[in-house]
Amino acid sequence: MYFPLLLPESESELNLRVAKARKAMEAHKLEAMLIVSSANMFYFAGGIFNGYIWLSLTDGPIFFVVPPLKTDSPLSRSIRKPEQIPALLADEGIRIPKRVGLEFDDLLYTEVKRLSGLFPDSEIADASVAMRECRAVKTPYELKVMREDGRKQAAVYSRIPHCYQEGMTDLEFQIEIEHVLRREGCLGFPRVAGRRMEINLGSVLAGENADEPSPYDFSMGGAGADPSLPVGASGTIMHPGIAVMVDMNGGFNGYQTDMTRVWSIEGLPKLAYDAHRCSCDILRDLEKFARPGVEIGELYRRARRLAEDAGLSEYFMGHNHQVKFIGHGVGIQLNEIPVIMERNRGLLAENMTIAIEPKFVLPGVGAVGVENTYIVTPDGLENITPLDEDIHEL
Amino acid sequence: MYFPLLLPESESELNLRVAKARKAMEAHKLEAMLIVSSANMFYFAGGIFNGYIWLSLTDGPIFFVVPPLKTDSPLSRSIRKPEQIPALLADEGIRIPKRVGLEFDDLLYTEVKRLSGLFPDSEIADASVAMRECRAVKTPYELKVMREDGRKQAAVYSRIPHCYQEGMTDLEFQIEIEHVLRREGCLGFPRVAGRRMEINLGSVLAGENADEPSPYDFSMGGAGADPSLPVGASGTIMHPGIAVMVDMNGGFNGYQTDMTRVWSIEGLPKLAYDAHRCSCDILRDLEKFARPGVEIGELYRRARRLAEDAGLSEYFMGHNHQVKFIGHGVGIQLNEIPVIMERNRGLLAENMTIAIEPKFVLPGVGAVGVENTYIVTPDGLENITPLDEDIHEL
Repeated sequence: MYFPLLLPESESELNLRVAKARKAMEAHKLEAMLIVSSANMFYFAGGIFNGYIWLSLTDGPIFFVVPPLKTDSPLSRSIRKPEQIPALLADEGIRIPKRVGLEFDDLLYTEVKRLSGLFPDSEIADASVAMRECRAVKTPYELKVMREDGRKQAAVYSRIPHCYQEGMTDLEFQIEIEHVLRREGCLGFPRVAGRRMEINLGSVLAGENADEPSPYDFSMGGAGADPSLPVGASGTIMHPGIAVMVDMNGGFNGYQTDMTRVWSIEGLPKLAYDAHRCSCDILRDLEKFARPGVEIGELYRRARRLAEDAGLSEYFMGHNHQVKFIGHGVGIQLNEIPVIMERNRGLLAENMTIAIEPKFVLPGVGAVGVENTYIVTPDGLENITPLDEDIHEL
Repeated sequence: MYFPLLLPESESELNLRVAKARKAMEAHKLEAMLIVSSANMFYFAGGIFNGYIWLSLTDGPIFFVVPPLKTDSPLSRSIRKPEQIPALLADEGIRIPKRVGLEFDDLLYTEVKRLSGLFPDSEIADASVAMRECRAVKTPYELKVMREDGRKQAAVYSRIPHCYQEGMTDLEFQIEIEHVLRREGCLGFPRVAGRRMEINLGSVLAGENADEPSPYDFSMGGAGADPSLPVGASGTIMHPGIAVMVDMNGGFNGYQTDMTRVWSIEGLPKLAYDAHRCSCDILRDLEKFARPGVEIGELYRRARRLAEDAGLSEYFMGHNHQVKFIGHGVGIQLNEIPVIMERNRGLLAENMTIAIEPKFVLPGVGAVGVENTYIVTPDGLENITPLDEDIHEL
């Protein structure tokens, strides 16, 4: 394998990403960054390799690649360990600037300490936030890839009813959906930001289990099948009268889309259909309202207001435990910025990709609501996970 | 859910683990630790929760639990954020010692920085290495759980031939094996140490793909199905004359076992059977030789010598790229200590659990060799993943 990997439309795409990154670096007063995390590495290289990427406002990117990977690009250099980087930069007449960024929120403490040692005369600052901001707004090529992801995820979701057999547990149902996902090309590895999100391929939440809190930052919890992984399906039999919420991974190509649909077993109480309708109403409202320049917190407030108007506040985004957001950015990582929560005073920007998931948890019934992944366009939101949103019988 | 979760044989088991941890803390001159990482949290609590565990040489463990999780144990306290911990400790008359450990090799840089701020008058030292050493030697209860894991993994492996259909790709074969694993209770989340091991449920390596290096620290590589996850099956059709190595996850209960077997398609060249026989010979040799007090590096050297004696050096642990270890500790995490490599001068201890995987990569054929997970006993190694080791036809 050779690095950097070719992105389709490669050189112009790399230049575009570098320009976007430099703009974010300037905003955070970073003169250079040494990139190590998988997500940011994938952003610049189009693939994961053992190595490091140097990018300054004026130089790079330089891809420092550890053997046995080979380099045949003028952008790549072979190294055995990161301690060689300063001398290699000096050889090329590249000075190490005063303020160098490392990914404080993506690397382990020991990694940052080691890499800080490469730049003893520089102030070491955080590069994670700058890169998160850079990646929040997608390039046209990234949007194309994510649309493809969304199509694939929706195609799998259309086959979900065939995964069900009467008397199954939620976990058995989830495993059959996983199987279809994998057969249709899902890579089986949801890349998440941060350290504290542990997950397999997503969650099936059936009935009351939707109201079990999880230690992770997911919109809905679930007790999980084992205390070592307390999230999602718990192994309980799916019985008549419960809602079955499916929120499974849509990662087919290094990017991900995020999507939720709900099924029922022998019908649900009227309140469940009302709440589900409210979730769809919220999405329709935000699809028109959300556009570049709109304050992100206002999306949350509008959604909450619509839930209030429908008399559903106590079930909104949980019942025993209500989470305080209704969506999040999505892309290379499942949980990117912006977080769509009340206190986010940031503004939506064109070509952000966001998952919106207004959900309700009803005691004795379970979770209802829809999640789609959207592109922010000047005309509102473009749904890239379109699929029938009604609650159908399993 | 209430914390701490009950481990079976709970109180005595917790006391035993605390005693082991304190011994490791003393060896590393740690007077206290604040534990946050999932693996170490699971070790003390028997489950993952949103919170923190305080353990000093004289006090604790105290489980600081963030709502909505409830606490009903005398060992638990409810908190909203870690900054409350020092005052809560002071309330109980617990002084914060001079040297406090945080998990430098398990937490993000930002996490360690934030948590360091709780103890402004203390020296902050690493707790990762102490906990790794503590966990390397298992308790009798842990051994029981891992034996159960091994039994389950071996049972799944015995069904692997049924997953095969002629004309399949390596990836399709892997997905069918994943499906059986999940149906038999595999949790679907391989917990690994460090940040740079990204993996789905394991690897099927068919033919030449076994010789593709991966950016991760696995014994064998594989190009993977996508540049965003370059490890394991690559989607190539399995054709006659290749070896198919299966190294899939065995995590059923918070612990994992690690196991590899090989199948063939319409026979292999004699060299492949010879190399596979050599792998089994190495395991038989080490099963007798390895016992408490033996230098760990000597296991590697004996294995390499047997490979040399068989004239197989150039294929040992890779061909284009040879890795320098033949095994590793395994338990809550897939990659624990000890690493069985030449320069490891540490000694085996009773009740360590190690995966040994002498493998060979043959050009044009693929990877052969066996991996088992073992318990170190006074009489040698106890194989907890016993299953026929021969190469059979798919």
